[in-house]
Amino acid sequence: MSTANEQTAIAIVRDFLDAVARGDRKAIRARHADDILMYDFPDTVRGIAEYDRTWDFFFNSQRGPITFAPSQLEASAGEDVAFVTCEVHCEGTKAGPLDFRLTVGLEKRGGDWVIAHEHHSLPARNEAVVMPEKREGLLGSAPSH
Amino acid sequence: MSTANEQTAIAIVRDFLDAVARGDRKAIRARHADDILMYDFPDTVRGIAEYDRTWDFFFNSQRGPITFAPSQLEASAGEDVAFVTCEVHCEGTKAGPLDFRLTVGLEKRGGDWVIAHEHHSLPARNEAVVMPEKREGLLGSAPSH
Repeated sequence: MSTANEQTAIAIVRDFLDAVARGDRKAIRARHADDILMYDFPDTVRGIAEYDRTWDFFFNSQRGPITFAPSQLEASAGEDVAFVTCEVHCEGTKAGPLDFRLTVGLEKRGGDWVIAHEHHSLPARNEAVVMPEKREGLLGSAPSH
Repeated sequence: MSTANEQTAIAIVRDFLDAVARGDRKAIRARHADDILMYDFPDTVRGIAEYDRTWDFFFNSQRGPITFAPSQLEASAGEDVAFVTCEVHCEGTKAGPLDFRLTVGLEKRGGDWVIAHEHHSLPARNEAVVMPEKREGLLGSAPSH
């Protein structure tokens, strides 16, 4: 485990999220691997071209300035593999304000850290606020928390 | 990057999923860190005690033999940090058959690999099959894939 690499991994994730908030499409994918595997909300996406297209859908849903602000950032990093977890507050799309969970997997390739994996999800608790009937349909309904 | 450690990480994830299918509660958490952070379907869970309770909800929803079968297993592993991705086919609960995405983050602590993070999610595509009105509500509706 490396504290310096943990800080680097967190900085890369922050830069990526900042690029989303700015709408800087090139910066969004600047540190992504060609073979990125993303578990996106709607479906699973493989490869940088398909990954990039998911941001078309995101920005097509834009309704104002984008907020894409991480909290609870944590990293585990070794010399050449790392993962980062955080919650992201998103505003400015037609979906309205929401908080999703993000896991990012990173690898060091050719001396540089790249994002090889992203996993995005909304907690069903939040969906249940909108659609109470959803709660029962999921594996193991949520306890009171 | 270490191929041997990738194989070890995948074996640990397979053992964990097999333990779920068998309903072996002790084996499910055998390789989990005390401070595990799980992004579970309903909500975020921290710590092994709270993690263990999520399996109460799962097994309370059991309606027959459990299938919990991974596919598309991939790992990135260094000397002391790794992550594993896979899709898991689940049957035997009141939710009916479903396929979810799983990301597992592992760390080597005191010489042993432990599961420090899990992120579970259903692709909204599948939820949209049940609830077409959900599709529009999500960030960037799904393309045809």
